[in-house]
Amino acid sequence: MEIELSKVAVSSAHGEDSPYFAGWKAYDENPYDEVHNPSGIIQMGLAENQVSFDMVEEYLEEHSEQALLGKKNKRSSFRENALFQDYHGLLSFRKAMASFMEQIRGGKAKFNPERIVLTAGVTAANELLTFILTNPGDALLVPTPYYPGLDRDLRWRTGAKIIPIHCESSNGYQVTPKTMEVAYQNAQSMNMKVRGVLITNPSNPLGVTIPRSTLEEIFNFVIQKNIHLVSDEIYSGSVFSSSDFVSIAEILVSKNYKEAERVHIVYSLSKDLGLPGFRVGTIYSYNDKVVTIARRMSSFSLISSQTQHLLACMLLDENFTEKYIRVNRERLLKRQQLMVNGLREYGIECLEGNACLFSWMNLSPFLEEPTMESELVLWNSIVNEVKLNISPGSSCHCVEPGWFRICFANMSEKTLEVALERIGDFILKRRANK
Amino acid sequence: MEIELSKVAVSSAHGEDSPYFAGWKAYDENPYDEVHNPSGIIQMGLAENQVSFDMVEEYLEEHSEQALLGKKNKRSSFRENALFQDYHGLLSFRKAMASFMEQIRGGKAKFNPERIVLTAGVTAANELLTFILTNPGDALLVPTPYYPGLDRDLRWRTGAKIIPIHCESSNGYQVTPKTMEVAYQNAQSMNMKVRGVLITNPSNPLGVTIPRSTLEEIFNFVIQKNIHLVSDEIYSGSVFSSSDFVSIAEILVSKNYKEAERVHIVYSLSKDLGLPGFRVGTIYSYNDKVVTIARRMSSFSLISSQTQHLLACMLLDENFTEKYIRVNRERLLKRQQLMVNGLREYGIECLEGNACLFSWMNLSPFLEEPTMESELVLWNSIVNEVKLNISPGSSCHCVEPGWFRICFANMSEKTLEVALERIGDFILKRRANK
Repeated sequence: MEIELSKVAVSSAHGEDSPYFAGWKAYDENPYDEVHNPSGIIQMGLAENQVSFDMVEEYLEEHSEQALLGKKNKRSSFRENALFQDYHGLLSFRKAMASFMEQIRGGKAKFNPERIVLTAGVTAANELLTFILTNPGDALLVPTPYYPGLDRDLRWRTGAKIIPIHCESSNGYQVTPKTMEVAYQNAQSMNMKVRGVLITNPSNPLGVTIPRSTLEEIFNFVIQKNIHLVSDEIYSGSVFSSSDFVSIAEILVSKNYKEAERVHIVYSLSKDLGLPGFRVGTIYSYNDKVVTIARRMSSFSLISSQTQHLLACMLLDENFTEKYIRVNRERLLKRQQLMVNGLREYGIECLEGNACLFSWMNLSPFLEEPTMESELVLWNSIVNEVKLNISPGSSCHCVEPGWFRICFANMSEKTLEVALERIGDFILKRRANK
Repeated sequence: MEIELSKVAVSSAHGEDSPYFAGWKAYDENPYDEVHNPSGIIQMGLAENQVSFDMVEEYLEEHSEQALLGKKNKRSSFRENALFQDYHGLLSFRKAMASFMEQIRGGKAKFNPERIVLTAGVTAANELLTFILTNPGDALLVPTPYYPGLDRDLRWRTGAKIIPIHCESSNGYQVTPKTMEVAYQNAQSMNMKVRGVLITNPSNPLGVTIPRSTLEEIFNFVIQKNIHLVSDEIYSGSVFSSSDFVSIAEILVSKNYKEAERVHIVYSLSKDLGLPGFRVGTIYSYNDKVVTIARRMSSFSLISSQTQHLLACMLLDENFTEKYIRVNRERLLKRQQLMVNGLREYGIECLEGNACLFSWMNLSPFLEEPTMESELVLWNSIVNEVKLNISPGSSCHCVEPGWFRICFANMSEKTLEVALERIGDFILKRRANK
């Protein structure tokens, strides 16, 4: 008799069977390499920032000893860090995170290091908040299209449900009071208790920031319903022009922190600094109880003290961070322009983006039929014939078929040009066949 | 109207209100320091290995550049690691972990790096396995006394229950088929489905290994009931004489891996290498499905790739590991002897221990009455008058009053001598007053 596993274990809520992950697997089996595998698949499904890594490397090369073993007394500092397992995290690192988050927001919001809860990446942060805010079967409202990983992060182990707030291209995919209310009523009609709204700002996969007026509408909505608001701002430092980004923290400032205790910000260094391997995430909650409980819960996903120490040194160096933030924005914009303009030459349009490591590409004119089935047929061709791994909108729960997320920052300019050529050829052939 | 949090959030299953954590807080408020606070509380509630740290430091000092940035091409290696977020973990690190686990077991069991699942510490590993093996309300049987943190790790977010297998001093606190059966029936009488047995070998808080014959009885029991067996072997490298430790892996070898798919080993570098801050835990499962699911689930608690890289270099150096394991055992034994013999001079006996960073001290002769209330009264005196933070047996769910866990490896010999003197004075006064 085979031994039984739990319902969570055998459920498919981890989402790894979706096209989002299937594309990754296809890439893994046949990865493009300029020299060794020029006909391989180019990975454009991975939101990774490699355009500014040289600045991090340069810093670390200049400060490697300090970063590894500590400034003054090598031995004792390394020992302290190796033994340090307090779930508060290193104070120096929390201060560094708070200060970096302030810098990214141009000083328009302040962050208190005592409210910084550290987690091993945003995956852990979002799950942790869901454990704190929802009971199994309760709902979180999430605007679509959304990052496919959220299905796993918010639902898998917590038993929470995601009720989509369906957004459409007609208004640039922005949330409205009406679409929020529809989602809320949907949840209620299924007897689910709605516990909160979770937004990603700027949006993954759209590559756009949420306007101030929309943020205010969302904030008013969560107050009206007496529910929570989680704002995942993991791409906040990857907005091309700093003035384009409004953090929910700034809305709270403008309201003198009234009703702030329902707001929780999620952040990480994976995207803006390009350090996903270091597993650095954070929850910034304005709710004292949530801070206390999240800290306790962070025992399940603490950040290596070695890594905290290394990054504290780097982020507390304002010369470094000022330059990094500025140059990184410039480079990302340049890269995005390269891709968007390149696509436009072939008649492919993207949603007008101002942030992130990807664009939201409209291939709906090239669908056989305006259906999700057609979207997946097209996606299959792009992965297996064009040999580009991009993410279909349906994997992001987009309601309009034919949109795809395409990443531009995890490869060299040269590789991006190869990718553009490939997709151009494909589209030209399609046109010719029609 | 105050905004609501989840049942998990407001539950007390995190256990932080127990005397185990209360003692820590008392220490935090008034920590002993030889020079600056000689009348402060000495921390003997923290199972931390500081006796062998000089060997780790020496290695890292000699190899710091390699360890931080990689051997050949500094830049590219650091970049690879910083970007690396595959939940399989670095292959080099998984190989290093497998090899280190083999070395600790004197080569009597082999470990396949493909079955190594990495987690941010054992806290995460034990919870992760509980999510995979149990549904909310299901039970795991755990021998008492057990590590107080298990109440949090196994129960808090999973909704699983712990049903104690009550062990007693009369047979050296060993599990028997009878006590397992009693626990099993207890769970059934409460309509709980029993999903597995979780043992810690060597035992925290007892500081003893589980004999081969007992392991075989436990293994037979889980086969008979068709349930899982989790063996937390976090202290396996901290057994004073290598021949004293039998891993569940060796039992499986002796049975030609029959019924192995119900067995899961948990390990970590926090205790044996004294690196709790680095958050390195691992699950080694003989069940293919559990390996696959645990890997997916490890997304919530990945280990920093920087730390994986550093430790892979160190653990793949057999000169280092051979010497470290041997010398660490010798030093721990010496330290334990110092404490146990010191206590004996004052007429205090400990359970005969052969492992770990603590001893199980019998103060039952000094209780006013043979009750748990008396134990806590005595504990309060020891923390607040004697100024030693030790952990009362009741916080470990021990059924016999008057036993305490006392740690010896997280301080200098000198501090340990101060602690011995303090407790000796206290006991002598008690005797005089009677």
